[in-house]
Amino acid sequence: MVELGNTTIKRIGLLTSGGDAPGMNGAIRAVTRSANYHGLEVVGISHGYRGMINKAFKTLESKDVSNILQQGGTILKSARCMEFKTIEGRKKAYDNLIEAKIDALVVIGGDGTFTGAGLFAKEHNFPVVGIPGTIDNDLYGTDFTIGYDTALNTIVDCVDKIKDTATAHERLFFIEVMGRDAGFLALNGGIAAGSEAVLIPEIPTSYADLKSYLANGYRKSKNSSIVLVAEGEKEGGAFNWAKRVEKDFPDYDVRVTILGHIQRGGTPSASDRILASRLGAGAIEALMDDQKSIMIGIENGEIVHVPFTKAIKNQKGVKQQQLDLVKILSN
Amino acid sequence: MVELGNTTIKRIGLLTSGGDAPGMNGAIRAVTRSANYHGLEVVGISHGYRGMINKAFKTLESKDVSNILQQGGTILKSARCMEFKTIEGRKKAYDNLIEAKIDALVVIGGDGTFTGAGLFAKEHNFPVVGIPGTIDNDLYGTDFTIGYDTALNTIVDCVDKIKDTATAHERLFFIEVMGRDAGFLALNGGIAAGSEAVLIPEIPTSYADLKSYLANGYRKSKNSSIVLVAEGEKEGGAFNWAKRVEKDFPDYDVRVTILGHIQRGGTPSASDRILASRLGAGAIEALMDDQKSIMIGIENGEIVHVPFTKAIKNQKGVKQQQLDLVKILSN
Amino acid sequence: MVELGNTTIKRIGLLTSGGDAPGMNGAIRAVTRSANYHGLEVVGISHGYRGMINKAFKTLESKDVSNILQQGGTILKSARCMEFKTIEGRKKAYDNLIEAKIDALVVIGGDGTFTGAGLFAKEHNFPVVGIPGTIDNDLYGTDFTIGYDTALNTIVDCVDKIKDTATAHERLFFIEVMGRDAGFLALNGGIAAGSEAVLIPEIPTSYADLKSYLANGYRKSKNSSIVLVAEGEKEGGAFNWAKRVEKDFPDYDVRVTILGHIQRGGTPSASDRILASRLGAGAIEALMDDQKSIMIGIENGEIVHVPFTKAIKNQKGVKQQQLDLVKILSN
Amino acid sequence: MVELGNTTIKRIGLLTSGGDAPGMNGAIRAVTRSANYHGLEVVGISHGYRGMINKAFKTLESKDVSNILQQGGTILKSARCMEFKTIEGRKKAYDNLIEAKIDALVVIGGDGTFTGAGLFAKEHNFPVVGIPGTIDNDLYGTDFTIGYDTALNTIVDCVDKIKDTATAHERLFFIEVMGRDAGFLALNGGIAAGSEAVLIPEIPTSYADLKSYLANGYRKSKNSSIVLVAEGEKEGGAFNWAKRVEKDFPDYDVRVTILGHIQRGGTPSASDRILASRLGAGAIEALMDDQKSIMIGIENGEIVHVPFTKAIKNQKGVKQQQLDLVKILSN
Repeated sequence: MVELGNTTIKRIGLLTSGGDAPGMNGAIRAVTRSANYHGLEVVGISHGYRGMINKAFKTLESKDVSNILQQGGTILKSARCMEFKTIEGRKKAYDNLIEAKIDALVVIGGDGTFTGAGLFAKEHNFPVVGIPGTIDNDLYGTDFTIGYDTALNTIVDCVDKIKDTATAHERLFFIEVMGRDAGFLALNGGIAAGSEAVLIPEIPTSYADLKSYLANGYRKSKNSSIVLVAEGEKEGGAFNWAKRVEKDFPDYDVRVTILGHIQRGGTPSASDRILASRLGAGAIEALMDDQKSIMIGIENGEIVHVPFTKAIKNQKGVKQQQLDLVKILSN
Repeated sequence: MVELGNTTIKRIGLLTSGGDAPGMNGAIRAVTRSANYHGLEVVGISHGYRGMINKAFKTLESKDVSNILQQGGTILKSARCMEFKTIEGRKKAYDNLIEAKIDALVVIGGDGTFTGAGLFAKEHNFPVVGIPGTIDNDLYGTDFTIGYDTALNTIVDCVDKIKDTATAHERLFFIEVMGRDAGFLALNGGIAAGSEAVLIPEIPTSYADLKSYLANGYRKSKNSSIVLVAEGEKEGGAFNWAKRVEKDFPDYDVRVTILGHIQRGGTPSASDRILASRLGAGAIEALMDDQKSIMIGIENGEIVHVPFTKAIKNQKGVKQQQLDLVKILSN
Repeated sequence: MVELGNTTIKRIGLLTSGGDAPGMNGAIRAVTRSANYHGLEVVGISHGYRGMINKAFKTLESKDVSNILQQGGTILKSARCMEFKTIEGRKKAYDNLIEAKIDALVVIGGDGTFTGAGLFAKEHNFPVVGIPGTIDNDLYGTDFTIGYDTALNTIVDCVDKIKDTATAHERLFFIEVMGRDAGFLALNGGIAAGSEAVLIPEIPTSYADLKSYLANGYRKSKNSSIVLVAEGEKEGGAFNWAKRVEKDFPDYDVRVTILGHIQRGGTPSASDRILASRLGAGAIEALMDDQKSIMIGIENGEIVHVPFTKAIKNQKGVKQQQLDLVKILSN
Repeated sequence: MVELGNTTIKRIGLLTSGGDAPGMNGAIRAVTRSANYHGLEVVGISHGYRGMINKAFKTLESKDVSNILQQGGTILKSARCMEFKTIEGRKKAYDNLIEAKIDALVVIGGDGTFTGAGLFAKEHNFPVVGIPGTIDNDLYGTDFTIGYDTALNTIVDCVDKIKDTATAHERLFFIEVMGRDAGFLALNGGIAAGSEAVLIPEIPTSYADLKSYLANGYRKSKNSSIVLVAEGEKEGGAFNWAKRVEKDFPDYDVRVTILGHIQRGGTPSASDRILASRLGAGAIEALMDDQKSIMIGIENGEIVHVPFTKAIKNQKGVKQQQLDLVKILSN
């Protein structure tokens, strides 16, 4: 243990919570090795907050995180935990941490994870630092969240494949991607894969507009058309849109694909591994620097500290201009 | 044009028909360049048999097939054609070929394609040679069909990704893959990806057996379970099985993914490119050798000629032993 | 043509120059379609500046850039051109542009490309806008250059593969990656792939330090060690370092791999496609807005305009802190 | 333990030896789980034959081989062992096996591995079964060896990437691939990637022929040319050929890439995983069936038993016809 701003932290609990995201293992590795480098111990907590309540604790050492940088998923597992949503549950978790001499916490996850972390930190005046890990990229205060870039590449790879067959048969595909409240994957997947339109929760597209985009492509005798639909889009998802279009364009050969859970897995992209490595190291530095109740983020290439409340409640937002880019480039 | 067995063939029509498969472009390239090498002309026919009826003919030269070996889909497009299923339609197609001085035909596709080809060849005494192109691998007389290996790799890549997230959350996934009448993709995908069970049309698995496999895995505290389901499986597909299991194992977290059309696209695997190259060259050699109404296949590493009727009607079959292997290896 | 700030631009010349980078095709597509959308014509110029001198001009329309977004390389080709380095060469190029009624230029490339562009623009008072396309990421004023993310992913994919065999045989690999003056690929590739050390031109590593890193890993009985070496590293490249280490650590099994040109190709990553799409659209907007002699960049997620001189001469720089991260994470 | 042909085998030693190959882990998994399924124990031996001499023994159970099917390399490690090449070394190894109550051996490797296995089996009348694992595909009696298909796909992926940049700059690349005595990777890689020529040990290509192929491609104004060179080619490798060509074709822009060890790693292809699974299960069945001193292979889709001597000494051979195919298809 080195003498730094905070001399009291000796043992750090580490967990992953919520939907898993490729790159979480890279963050686990970076937290563990940075802590070890600075003389701090790390205790891995399995299955998210459930593990805090169940005392699923196990010391993590440097060699325990060898060869996980390239693996999707999370070696610490993830799970939902209703009990941690109660004051009693969090108290029990706190008692367990104290008993195990854990004096700080690093949590890797999304907004649900940080909401719980914020409450826990406040109730027990416990140092907690968060690392943004979610494929949805829907946290404020960081340019990207861990997993987003990998999921985007998976989507683009899948749409490329579907385009091959769509073009061979001159078909129109509605492809549904993840994103319950955020359209980042659909929007940027659509730009990257060259889709005709994207349908996202933040800025609804009218059916009239969609029809005009499609008619435009069709008129120019495009070989195929792709529409990306975010899971959280308000009009009922890929199947509903497909049905409406089929009715109005009987000469279109319309198909639907729901990409599903393949978006959550796979070896993390270079960018996600770098992000995870930097954020993990940043979390340990923040704790050593007496920071608490903050998310570590990267903005403009630099590590930033964002209060949990700000990270969760604010919106990155999608600009109309970005939706316009899809239209311009598919024109 | 070289003097060979058949001195009458000078111009060969070439088409792709039925569901597209990765590697079809490699076969198009090989047919074109082999024909050119031997002094024969190739006329590309767009949209399968429809193009024969619509005179969608265009000469293909060596440079037209540059840089297509690595592309999924088919540059000649594919389509269904009801008219070719009638005697009149096939007569019209024949007249068009004669008018365009096309004196032989190479068709790339699956059993539907070869059924049409067989009728056409018989009615008009026209030399037709078939190249097996279908991801389902359901043609008799060839070890593999073009596209099967690529689709298998796509499936394995997707299941690997799903396993990452399945393991992180300890879930059971039912994953539906293509194969209306044939379980090759599900069976071998299951072996390659390490699934707990596969459900295929050829050899039904009883619900009791499935339950015992799953219980077995669960008992051994496996981290996740994967069941691959062929599209044509008789009990109602992935969603139905998932519902039954959810009811009987309330503690399982069950999910379903339908892989869909991503299985049809993507850059062809090395093996599919080699197969397509050899079969395409083999088709031209067969025509120069006066062969007709046959499919070119590869068995035991050697080019073989299989009568259309035999290729379509016979069954490769799946052996119980192969299903047993899934069980043994997941044990 | 729309009435905007600059009413005189009607026809835009477009070229790629210098080393090619994955994503250049995405920029070509975005420039073409954005220009068309705004009523401007685009003339593709082949083989970089040589094409300006040789009048290798060809109008690009929307359909000419279909299905290139996913392709590596550049459909406009690239080449070196000594003649353009002379005043006379640039005068000839200018005369050709005027003759072809081309009244603005978009150039995609790196620092060499922008140096030529700057001179040309100044000498002939000609509107030129640059798009940063180079895998080296060594231009100032943009967070990333087109191709860098794809090259980084290729490197990481290769190092992952080499790690498999390195671990099986407990070997030490020196892997040389591209980057004549810039160590970004080596540094971030090293972080992303979990290497023991990186050797880059900007911040030399002493042999003594390297030895201590390796001895450290060896002492902890690591299964394998990877050192990434930038092409432009000052001590003589991967082979030289390997020789020195072999001498001092006779028990190490040392190997060398030069990744070479595979780093320049491949389908562009999602991130590179998005970057290329935004920069291409941004270049057209800048021209319509009377901008000239600038590079379009993206900083903090927003489009920025950077004078050529500033983009070329300044240095992004590598921080010691980033090199330290490699050491901390491999500890 | 089940009562079968051989009632004496209870505990099986398992090792990997020689150059590692992707898919070896799949074979380790299949051997372990098949053995367990049939009531036999498996003892993993680390670092090949060295582990037999050093008593590096560790029982392998079902869960020890979870999640290794998708990993390159070998969890049992591999190494060279000079001592095992002596009678004394093999005697020591034998004594150690007896002491550890290991009564049969499964070895995964190539011809060097089987040579040692054959001697050991003969000297000590010990049941040994081999599984062919080598990327070179140079064993007789099996259509494919484990790792070959994955290496072939890696090569094709790399050549595709290089083609992107080769085409952008209109260059000629000599690409050297693995294969000391066998040209399978170069030959089939060349067919699959669409190269202009392949240079292999089995059938030398004269410099005059190579020049004519290149001149032919160049005359037709191909955009790029690729020549694949097997490591074991007799004329001195990729660099030598490149030098000669550069001298004779000063207008060619010639480059060389040595693919190196990336060919040994990576997640195994679907086909290699299936092969490894079937061979691993087949090895256990063979031992239970009293077989010894044989390699398990697959010919025509069926498991076969091939005496070690036959597998090593015979040659699969490359046919002139296959080399011709490269020429025909690049024409």
